[in-house]
Amino acid sequence: MKTTALIMAGGRGERFWPKSRKNLPKQFLSLTNDGKTMIQLTVERILPLVEMDDIYISTNENYRDLVKTQLPNLPEQNIICEPVGRNTAPCIGLGAIHVLSKYDDALMIVLPSDHLIKQKTLFLNTLRNACQVAQENSNLVTIGITPDYPETGYGYIRFDEEISIGQAYRAAEFVEKPDLETAKTYFESGQYLWNSGMFVWKISSILNKMETLMPETYLGLRKIQEAFGTAQEESVLQTEFAKMRSISIDYGILEHADDIYTVPGSFGWDDVGSWLALERINPTNEFGNVLSGTLITVDTKNCILQGGTKLIATVGVQDLIVVDTPDAILICQKENAEDIKKVLENLRICDQTDYI
Amino acid sequence: MKTTALIMAGGRGERFWPKSRKNLPKQFLSLTNDGKTMIQLTVERILPLVEMDDIYISTNENYRDLVKTQLPNLPEQNIICEPVGRNTAPCIGLGAIHVLSKYDDALMIVLPSDHLIKQKTLFLNTLRNACQVAQENSNLVTIGITPDYPETGYGYIRFDEEISIGQAYRAAEFVEKPDLETAKTYFESGQYLWNSGMFVWKISSILNKMETLMPETYLGLRKIQEAFGTAQEESVLQTEFAKMRSISIDYGILEHADDIYTVPGSFGWDDVGSWLALERINPTNEFGNVLSGTLITVDTKNCILQGGTKLIATVGVQDLIVVDTPDAILICQKENAEDIKKVLENLRICDQTDYI
Repeated sequence: MKTTALIMAGGRGERFWPKSRKNLPKQFLSLTNDGKTMIQLTVERILPLVEMDDIYISTNENYRDLVKTQLPNLPEQNIICEPVGRNTAPCIGLGAIHVLSKYDDALMIVLPSDHLIKQKTLFLNTLRNACQVAQENSNLVTIGITPDYPETGYGYIRFDEEISIGQAYRAAEFVEKPDLETAKTYFESGQYLWNSGMFVWKISSILNKMETLMPETYLGLRKIQEAFGTAQEESVLQTEFAKMRSISIDYGILEHADDIYTVPGSFGWDDVGSWLALERINPTNEFGNVLSGTLITVDTKNCILQGGTKLIATVGVQDLIVVDTPDAILICQKENAEDIKKVLENLRICDQTDYI
Repeated sequence: MKTTALIMAGGRGERFWPKSRKNLPKQFLSLTNDGKTMIQLTVERILPLVEMDDIYISTNENYRDLVKTQLPNLPEQNIICEPVGRNTAPCIGLGAIHVLSKYDDALMIVLPSDHLIKQKTLFLNTLRNACQVAQENSNLVTIGITPDYPETGYGYIRFDEEISIGQAYRAAEFVEKPDLETAKTYFESGQYLWNSGMFVWKISSILNKMETLMPETYLGLRKIQEAFGTAQEESVLQTEFAKMRSISIDYGILEHADDIYTVPGSFGWDDVGSWLALERINPTNEFGNVLSGTLITVDTKNCILQGGTKLIATVGVQDLIVVDTPDAILICQKENAEDIKKVLENLRICDQTDYI
């Protein structure tokens, strides 16, 4: 059975403002020092497992040219543009019917486009194990990450050690981002994994589940599929996709099915969820600073400083995120990193959309 | 007797980096919202008391053109360029012999070029009182500022309430910048004034004191004066001025004379000594922020934000000074404002003098 991949690249990456912008969001930025963008790294990482012709990028019309430029070897018809954002369930459904129009059935690996993974071989092995379970047993398989610490920014998967198929364990429960106290109990119990947002299933398996659990969305997807190659293709997509309920695959499917399995993995995964990730993925200096650009630091500790073309001089500061871009500068206390979206809200209110 | 003024404008204003630069120091910047530079405000302020033709600007060759541009009505020969910086005593001495070459004797008001004064009429009245004492009694007269709070960044003058001439009291003691404890006792005693660095005396009085207390400097000044108008004028100035001891007028003269008088004044004086002054001279918003430029502030308190052409967004920060300029950005915790000079030291060490 063919192995295909759907890489989801429609996000806005607001927590990486001001580098991540509406017209150039995080997945199209390079946040590592190899010069490669997040989406380029994502594609490169799975090429040993999936042929380029079988990689699909789900995004929207605004980013079509970015995808073409950054992934010149990707077949143009593999860029799937959603007419509107409807969260991951419709996105994955749309990807599935695209694959279905090419293959009778196939394995589909679903991946975010903006995560980082250090140990690529371990990652591929985990995916191979997941593919095996998904193919042989028709299960929906998620990739769970063995937690390193009680992170409060991720969802968790409780797995059942008693019930396993191959390298996969039954996913007993999906839980939302916990508070610190809860995260600590999860972490200490050893029964929880981080929900990485990476999934493996057969096209037939996920569409069957959609038919049962999200029948209206499934119906819409079928209509879209039937219109493929006709003069109505675009208008049907527009109409049907817009009607779909905006819901994540977790809420829409995974939390309601009882035959979900999870393959635990540990391969240096990072969701690069906010500027704070730069401390995890880059080396810090003797004062705990992550530095790039032309900088003078005086009594500066545990800061993330991302210079642009200007000199940045810091004096007596700690736990700051500073990001300079050609038209905007962010200065944010680390513990308030989530509030960067409030800057964007304010910019919208003030109608200063050029900065968004 | 003619009243003249010597405005000292040779400083580098390093504590106002990155706006204040070697090529455009603080006295030539506008830090108020009237668009006028510090030196323009200084000249404008004393025009009711001193004719433009009798105002002298002491600076150095680098700033001659700035003075000419910013003070187009000032006679060009009134720009006195020191060949090297030798602190205020030689600076004042050089100013004095320039005045002496024009008038047999005259009153000389000595003023820094980079202070701000809110109540101009009260200021002029204080100067008039000082002029009267200086003229009638040949005393050296300093302007003392009634303290508003126990500032540790100023020198203090202890005055003797029992001994007065006109509006002036005998200056019993000059003391250096005190620690907070000492400043509090000074403040509470009511016997101390801030040393404003503004002085009034007759040319004859100050030169007589120099002859007694700084005889070598005095000799050098006389040689310079004798060379005025000759072919050797420039070379004598270079040689003699360079030989002079670098010393402040306070150390060189005032602390060693026993007939110094001080006129207390209270006229909204601010030495604008660092970025922190912006909180005193500008209105703060409801969160204690002093703002200029295009800004988005989220959970931002008691900050001084000086934007440039870019948007500055701050999130969760307090007590920060942020200054954006075309080529450099400063981010400094308020309590470390004195350490801005360490940035300049580092820039010198790294030979990045373009930023200085």
